[in-house]
Amino acid sequence: MSRSVNVAIIGTGVVGAAFINQLKNLQSVITFNVVYLARSRTALIARDYQPLALASWEADVQAATTPTLALSELAQFLRAGTAPAILIDNTSNEEIASFYPSFIEQGISIATPNKKAFSSGLQTWKQIFAGAAKPAGGLVYHEATVGAGLPIIGTLRDIVATGDKVQKIEGIFSGTLSYIFNEFSTPEGKDVNFSDVVAVAKSLGYTEPDPRDDLNGLDVARKVTILARIAGFEVESPTSFPVHSLIPKALESVKSGEEYMEKLPEFDGDMETLKENAAKQNKVLRFVGKVDFPSNTVSVGIEEYSFDHPFAALKGSDNVVSIQTERYQNPLIVQGAGAGAEVTAAGVLADAIKIAERIAK
Amino acid sequence: MSRSVNVAIIGTGVVGAAFINQLKNLQSVITFNVVYLARSRTALIARDYQPLALASWEADVQAATTPTLALSELAQFLRAGTAPAILIDNTSNEEIASFYPSFIEQGISIATPNKKAFSSGLQTWKQIFAGAAKPAGGLVYHEATVGAGLPIIGTLRDIVATGDKVQKIEGIFSGTLSYIFNEFSTPEGKDVNFSDVVAVAKSLGYTEPDPRDDLNGLDVARKVTILARIAGFEVESPTSFPVHSLIPKALESVKSGEEYMEKLPEFDGDMETLKENAAKQNKVLRFVGKVDFPSNTVSVGIEEYSFDHPFAALKGSDNVVSIQTERYQNPLIVQGAGAGAEVTAAGVLADAIKIAERIAK
Repeated sequence: MSRSVNVAIIGTGVVGAAFINQLKNLQSVITFNVVYLARSRTALIARDYQPLALASWEADVQAATTPTLALSELAQFLRAGTAPAILIDNTSNEEIASFYPSFIEQGISIATPNKKAFSSGLQTWKQIFAGAAKPAGGLVYHEATVGAGLPIIGTLRDIVATGDKVQKIEGIFSGTLSYIFNEFSTPEGKDVNFSDVVAVAKSLGYTEPDPRDDLNGLDVARKVTILARIAGFEVESPTSFPVHSLIPKALESVKSGEEYMEKLPEFDGDMETLKENAAKQNKVLRFVGKVDFPSNTVSVGIEEYSFDHPFAALKGSDNVVSIQTERYQNPLIVQGAGAGAEVTAAGVLADAIKIAERIAK
Repeated sequence: MSRSVNVAIIGTGVVGAAFINQLKNLQSVITFNVVYLARSRTALIARDYQPLALASWEADVQAATTPTLALSELAQFLRAGTAPAILIDNTSNEEIASFYPSFIEQGISIATPNKKAFSSGLQTWKQIFAGAAKPAGGLVYHEATVGAGLPIIGTLRDIVATGDKVQKIEGIFSGTLSYIFNEFSTPEGKDVNFSDVVAVAKSLGYTEPDPRDDLNGLDVARKVTILARIAGFEVESPTSFPVHSLIPKALESVKSGEEYMEKLPEFDGDMETLKENAAKQNKVLRFVGKVDFPSNTVSVGIEEYSFDHPFAALKGSDNVVSIQTERYQNPLIVQGAGAGAEVTAAGVLADAIKIAERIAK
């Protein structure tokens, strides 16, 4: 008889929907029984643990009237099933994240792109991975919290597990900021204003509705926090190290994204000066997260890279990470799409498969 | 009580030694009991399954007089242990490779950098993975068969498992040929003869004693065979598709590597012409393995890349792979050291850990 796992999925947004569709088409020797499928207020619940049919999941979810289970009830429901359980959290919800330690303690494994639990207080991080290391604890895989489906977290964990020592991690971890800087500062010396690039990025839907939510650097800080911790750097929180916001001080408090966009051109001169200074040394500007062990620092901000550096050749909205270790003196580099529903969902699904391979019965 | 696996290690060459030293220092919640440690003729065998002490393994192996077990005896010995078993094959031995299907059939898992079993006849490949898919079959991980510890095989397997469709794989899979072409053909247009670069590579110890063993492209062909098969391209063997050898026809049959090196300068003109033609279009030459689904072809040979292509900026003897898929239209790129004892051993050890996480009891 084939091995199986029970699966609970929370979130049916763009990533959630892509995940469910990929799971629906999954070919695997392990059977993934979806027993819980929830959006914000309502859920489909297989009380008898007979797998939900996914063929028409969208219509079924639309029609659902059963309220979602409280997280403690969900844990109880999953524990009462005979197959080991995996929770797929395809939200960016903080409340769900804060319940991870409890799920794990109760033997429920987690695969998720939700950064919250891993990039908040260090105590939560420790609690999660101490729980996951216990024989009866659930497993936790979160590849898609950094660079979507790109093999960054798994690679870094392998590096650490095999006894290598990380010296430096640097990378471009925001698709939005990758696009903005790849357009703004090029080896060819494109003549374009920073505010115009931001406007184009906004019109293409690459930014949050208020672009300041990308330009404040906090999302990058969360990702760097995660990578630093895996590498053994005990970062207290994503606000405990220098994060260079790209938002001019004077525009931090303006009320709307519209007003910000309107006034941004007044500050183009500052960015232009930075760009020109870099260009004089044959360098481009990139918005980078860095973990540096020799100097014992973690930081997020603008850095300069030579025209022949891999970061200078980045295209579109790709992410890239460069990991220098004792063994990889010439850094190991991973590059590619670091955002988007399909690649994010694939990152979560690959994790779910890895968990299932370990726990399915 | 902590979970454990029994481990049999074959091979104490440079990779084997690095592996044992890494394993010796491994910190893991799973206990790795080394019960068999063999070099070509003699072995340390823990007949009572009490783990061998690794502290002085080199002296112990030197002093060993017990002959190695026949492979069938080794399988029997591992099956008779109470803990699940992992075979680490740190050789490039064809006979051991041909016994993989039997190990797997008997529930013994394998982690190895040995390309032979995966890049020979398609039938062996199918036998291995059909066996590994059975509930009682051993698992097979072979990340280090391509690009040493770089996350190439795992990444490709995740791409395929999550339902993405590979369109094109191309890469530089030989550290030796990476070095030679990175030195020979640069965007800056370095003025250097092909034969001189080969001579330097040889003097640095980057080539096999007879450089033709690198320049014939067969090692690259084996790696491309493996990647193609994972991506779903049923390559019959590494000689069933075009492999462009870099050895001039007239030098294929000369008796020694020395004679080859002596006569190689006579053929510098041919390579120079290729390089100049590429340079005229702002391109460099690279020695590349390719799997192309739209054109249904697999090939190994010299290709041209624009100065701003990631392959053109490659440094030293790094490997690189570019994977284009339905989801990664802008290719996913992995780059870094693709050879060397430490990174190869780390690739094998990371695989051994992944296996142990799945099978330890």
